[in-house]
Amino acid sequence: MTTTLSSLPTGEDIDTAIARGRRAYELDRKHVFHSWSAQEQINPMTVLAAKGSYLWDGDGNRLLDFSSQLVNTNIGHQHPKVVAAIAEQAATLCTVAPQHVNDARSEAARLIAERTPGDLNRIFFTNGGADAVEHAVRMARLHTGRYKVLSRYRSYHGGTDTAINLTGDPRRWPNDYASSGVVHFHGPFLYRSAFHAETEEQETQRALEHLERLIQMEGPNSFAAIILESVPGTAGIMVPPPGYMAGVREICDRYGIVFIADEVMAGFGRTGKWFAIDNFDVVPDLITFAKGVTSGYVPLGGVAINEAIYDTFADRAYPGGLTYSGHPLATACAVATINAMEDEGMVDNAARIGADVLGPGLRELATRHRSVGEVRGLGVFWAIELVADQATREPLAPYGGSSPAMAAVLAACKSGGLLPFANFNRIHAVPPCNVTDDEVAEGLRILDAALDVADQHAR
Amino acid sequence: MTTTLSSLPTGEDIDTAIARGRRAYELDRKHVFHSWSAQEQINPMTVLAAKGSYLWDGDGNRLLDFSSQLVNTNIGHQHPKVVAAIAEQAATLCTVAPQHVNDARSEAARLIAERTPGDLNRIFFTNGGADAVEHAVRMARLHTGRYKVLSRYRSYHGGTDTAINLTGDPRRWPNDYASSGVVHFHGPFLYRSAFHAETEEQETQRALEHLERLIQMEGPNSFAAIILESVPGTAGIMVPPPGYMAGVREICDRYGIVFIADEVMAGFGRTGKWFAIDNFDVVPDLITFAKGVTSGYVPLGGVAINEAIYDTFADRAYPGGLTYSGHPLATACAVATINAMEDEGMVDNAARIGADVLGPGLRELATRHRSVGEVRGLGVFWAIELVADQATREPLAPYGGSSPAMAAVLAACKSGGLLPFANFNRIHAVPPCNVTDDEVAEGLRILDAALDVADQHAR
Repeated sequence: MTTTLSSLPTGEDIDTAIARGRRAYELDRKHVFHSWSAQEQINPMTVLAAKGSYLWDGDGNRLLDFSSQLVNTNIGHQHPKVVAAIAEQAATLCTVAPQHVNDARSEAARLIAERTPGDLNRIFFTNGGADAVEHAVRMARLHTGRYKVLSRYRSYHGGTDTAINLTGDPRRWPNDYASSGVVHFHGPFLYRSAFHAETEEQETQRALEHLERLIQMEGPNSFAAIILESVPGTAGIMVPPPGYMAGVREICDRYGIVFIADEVMAGFGRTGKWFAIDNFDVVPDLITFAKGVTSGYVPLGGVAINEAIYDTFADRAYPGGLTYSGHPLATACAVATINAMEDEGMVDNAARIGADVLGPGLRELATRHRSVGEVRGLGVFWAIELVADQATREPLAPYGGSSPAMAAVLAACKSGGLLPFANFNRIHAVPPCNVTDDEVAEGLRILDAALDVADQHAR
Repeated sequence: MTTTLSSLPTGEDIDTAIARGRRAYELDRKHVFHSWSAQEQINPMTVLAAKGSYLWDGDGNRLLDFSSQLVNTNIGHQHPKVVAAIAEQAATLCTVAPQHVNDARSEAARLIAERTPGDLNRIFFTNGGADAVEHAVRMARLHTGRYKVLSRYRSYHGGTDTAINLTGDPRRWPNDYASSGVVHFHGPFLYRSAFHAETEEQETQRALEHLERLIQMEGPNSFAAIILESVPGTAGIMVPPPGYMAGVREICDRYGIVFIADEVMAGFGRTGKWFAIDNFDVVPDLITFAKGVTSGYVPLGGVAINEAIYDTFADRAYPGGLTYSGHPLATACAVATINAMEDEGMVDNAARIGADVLGPGLRELATRHRSVGEVRGLGVFWAIELVADQATREPLAPYGGSSPAMAAVLAACKSGGLLPFANFNRIHAVPPCNVTDDEVAEGLRILDAALDVADQHAR
């Protein structure tokens, strides 16, 4: 697909932009060390510009961004209200130390606290999701006086040491020293049930029984926290079946365990609610957030804290912090992002897109493509599970790896003009919350063609 | 001190600003959870505005910022070139995922790599100092195949789990589960020598002997890394004596240990060099940085990596990452900050201020105030060690605590119009690198008066 544009949405001449991108690529290969990569085996894509649901690659090709980058640009790229708010705060006051009061931080805390469920009214700001998780676990440990933490397989909680130890995906394996007192359990995932379940009801009941049995074997008084993505994200967008999250809440109450809902990827509108946990009418004790809170325009994360845990640190120092906790530029960006989402009805749009457009569209594709084992999700948070065989459910790439088949499918997406999020044998369709019906239709058409390629690798 | 201004440097009417600050304070107390604090026992200061070396508190009082917040605003507040660069990048492209190439990130990596010593030419970007340290330790572990890490007492390395375990100050105590394989040692600090040394030469030689003996007792083949702040910051700005850092380098080479120089606070001009390690003509294997790289205007940190460690991850995946690694807005801010520092000679100014103005001024104060045990530092990085007794060196507040005497000294600074950085029995004079001679003179006058208060508590 060759570009027909003469300029980018910024007004920049396309040839100038392409030359700029080439220089950026050269310097990148000389000086930039990339996340999760063998440095000499990657050929990263250059991004020259982005606007709304689209971005432009290093050759000037326009791509529909169904990745939302790392599932964080929940308001799309370059939202003018948020861009303006960043410039305005930068001109006013970029930074103060965390011990001082700043109005952007105060207002962001208010807006977040008003949206969290229950009495999670206190906000500790961090730089991103990983440190939010680190601090949530620390709060739970000091609140309970216990050390061990439960976390599910097929999960991701961040890249720092405690966060990666909590993670239940293969990225943990190379740097897991069992140092963080984590016990992993199987969560509900009916399509690949660990419990030989055949119905959602069975999956819920057996998954809860499995969790409680593990607690009894590991010591009912030894766990500080259970951490769960409200809807696991990168690990596969497995929406918990009815009753599961409520059952976890009951188990936490029974054993005095802090319930941490990790909403780093699922929060801030992604599932069609402000927080994904609201889909299950459950109130956790702590919520970790990042990504969507600023749409990633300025790095920000945090922990929403309930009154009981706050009280633990009312007269006893909380032993944790960071230079940029509640950074003015970042929190001003959060204020603008939340207000834009609210004013423009983006959370409701995400719910409607999931229920009426993207969900039905993906299910329709599933009926026509033998490579699709399952589609699942809600809001603007959908996974397409690709299989070599619908009967055996053999994945199109192994757990923790890729395959020529998956590479071919992704290449077909890109050549068709679509940038999806991909993980192992899955393609995730995770556009921004303000994606339009037409953009979803365009994405579905490109996916349809790419799934023809996948079908060639399926029996 | 009552303000005589009718408006803030932003042009905002002072009464409007004060009302805005009151509202911010109320919301802060309702919703903001603060770092390192007992939440109900703090009364945080509101910051209404800041410019250059000054800020304005919630009552509109102007304060000379000798804290640089948390020793991060190395170019002072609201530098117009950097504010403009943030607005420009925001309007162009706020964010892309770390796997893509972006020109702001490439350029920041180039500018940093050109300034690091030796062959530390590869830059892994993080959100701040703590995660920089986490990743540097991970790189060292995987590069060496070893787990344990050496770190000195009287040090600070960050708030996440591994980083706080590495820390050698009392903030570690409440959340240290000995989970991170850290062995702490005593570093050189002649004023409070752990080695009964009486000269710098003795201190260097005995501190190195102590370190090497510890390695032999703990297992010469068991250490992945030694991490050292090139000049320890919050712990007391103890400039290593001649030969110490070179001796650590030799020990690292002898035992195959990775030398990590933590430059989060000391780097980017603070000591009058781009990196503090350059004061000692030593090349470490990894450098961690944050704070000054963007002056804190946008959160950013990172690790500079030498070619040998880079090669370990050339064809084997580095198992770590984060959503905002090399964030465009943050790295554009780094580019503008480094260029402003370079163009305006700020690093040289910091060296000159330390050698000719601030250092001599503080030493002169020490001759006249019996509460001053020692002043020490370089560049714009100075500590005043306050004692109740110059002969016994009894500190004016205990290690890990405060005291009425220290509270009175700090109140005197503030009422005189100065905001210093304080820790235990120390006041740190850490203005921005572009502080003027007149501002230093003003700060010294206020300190002089505040030290009169300290003298009342000294024998």
